[in-house]
Amino acid sequence: MNDPRAIRRAIREGKFRRHTAGVAPGYVQGNVCILPREYADEFREFCELNPKPCPLLAMSAPGDPRLRELGEDLDIRTDVPRYRVFRDGVLTEELTDLRDLWRPDLVTFVLGCSFSFEEALSAEGLRLRYIEQGTNVPMFRTNVDCAPAGRFRGKLVVSMRPFKPADAIRAVEITARYPRVHGSPVHIGKPELIGIMDLDKPWAGDPTEVRADELPVFWACGITPQSVVLDAKPSLCITHAPGHMLVTDLRNDDLQNGDSHQ
Amino acid sequence: MNDPRAIRRAIREGKFRRHTAGVAPGYVQGNVCILPREYADEFREFCELNPKPCPLLAMSAPGDPRLRELGEDLDIRTDVPRYRVFRDGVLTEELTDLRDLWRPDLVTFVLGCSFSFEEALSAEGLRLRYIEQGTNVPMFRTNVDCAPAGRFRGKLVVSMRPFKPADAIRAVEITARYPRVHGSPVHIGKPELIGIMDLDKPWAGDPTEVRADELPVFWACGITPQSVVLDAKPSLCITHAPGHMLVTDLRNDDLQNGDSHQ
Repeated sequence: MNDPRAIRRAIREGKFRRHTAGVAPGYVQGNVCILPREYADEFREFCELNPKPCPLLAMSAPGDPRLRELGEDLDIRTDVPRYRVFRDGVLTEELTDLRDLWRPDLVTFVLGCSFSFEEALSAEGLRLRYIEQGTNVPMFRTNVDCAPAGRFRGKLVVSMRPFKPADAIRAVEITARYPRVHGSPVHIGKPELIGIMDLDKPWAGDPTEVRADELPVFWACGITPQSVVLDAKPSLCITHAPGHMLVTDLRNDDLQNGDSHQ
Repeated sequence: MNDPRAIRRAIREGKFRRHTAGVAPGYVQGNVCILPREYADEFREFCELNPKPCPLLAMSAPGDPRLRELGEDLDIRTDVPRYRVFRDGVLTEELTDLRDLWRPDLVTFVLGCSFSFEEALSAEGLRLRYIEQGTNVPMFRTNVDCAPAGRFRGKLVVSMRPFKPADAIRAVEITARYPRVHGSPVHIGKPELIGIMDLDKPWAGDPTEVRADELPVFWACGITPQSVVLDAKPSLCITHAPGHMLVTDLRNDDLQNGDSHQ
């Protein structure tokens, strides 16, 4: 399963319903958030104000299920392996097809995800313990406020990966080149300074050991916008189910930015 | 004193004998190391193997006091405000002019220095405590071996600057763009892992406080090659006196590297 178009077709035909981790290596996968038009401008502003947790890759026209910049054939109603539907902030359904639910006022947002920068870290020889241990990356809700936009406000959520100090520096350098997929870390060492009191008790995902010769390194996490949106209790919000991402035709290499400075 | 050519002329005419910190802002200053030809190939190899402590900006032909790539008029025998002469690894003289000492076998090496990346850090709003406190940057000899080349071998020396975690990440991103002036840090946090047992007792320079909400960030230091060279006890070695650097026509901006990855 290396071609994103073939994967989307398999999903569309009901032949692929699994997690998308590891499929179509080299291609960008995206977090999906679909909202009614009345929330769209505020959410776009929220993304623009918070580019590290909410790196906006594409936004659709209202009612248009196409996102041609991410894939000529792409149809957001059918091309994600599993969706979650939230009404007034409460999960009401998990679906594999949105065609019955689609409305002319729905706007799709696709945000970059950490799979892209993790691929770059691995390609440079940095090892990701949570993957080697077959677990999920640990995520923590911090005491750091996102910049608010209209009804959208809330705390930054981060993911944590441990590295030896010299590798942590390399990880900063590498991920800084990918501002459209979370970019460089937001914090390093000293978790208590951002309100994380116990690294063994993540808010989501699984605990990952930080050894005595390592530092915890924290990146802004793509769960942040979902957490913020659901707190705002929109009448309708549709997301991908965790790990069941949108596979796009963009290449991770194309997201690499020579000028790492945002 | 903003024009490097005017500064070199003033030095050459004996009108400027001070430290060069802060003069000719925007222009690259260099560490100077002059060795007999019989050591030159080994030292060049040492620099190439250890680009972070020894970022080689220019190397002269034997006996030629000119370094045209650093300044059309530049004469290394007269254009440094103060020199130190070491014989068999021992300091024997401090001079302001090398013309009486010059020999047809002497080779000049000019290495990048931290003034350049510190200017970039300041330009991005990062504050350098040791400068604000009017002290010298603290330097530490680590337990990390440089890659040896011939007679040149020894431990890496680092300088330390404290930053809050988010600023430390920015400092990595900024200095990574300047590989020809030490580049990104070599270590962050946990000084004991590189053999630094007491931050209050630097090997050179002055102690700098690291506050509870800060991490110590360590860059490879341009004192490393001087320490390594003198350990090798060459028959003759001439360096700039501390803080009395060679002011060149290169601009710090020109050293900026879009691709930060070495």
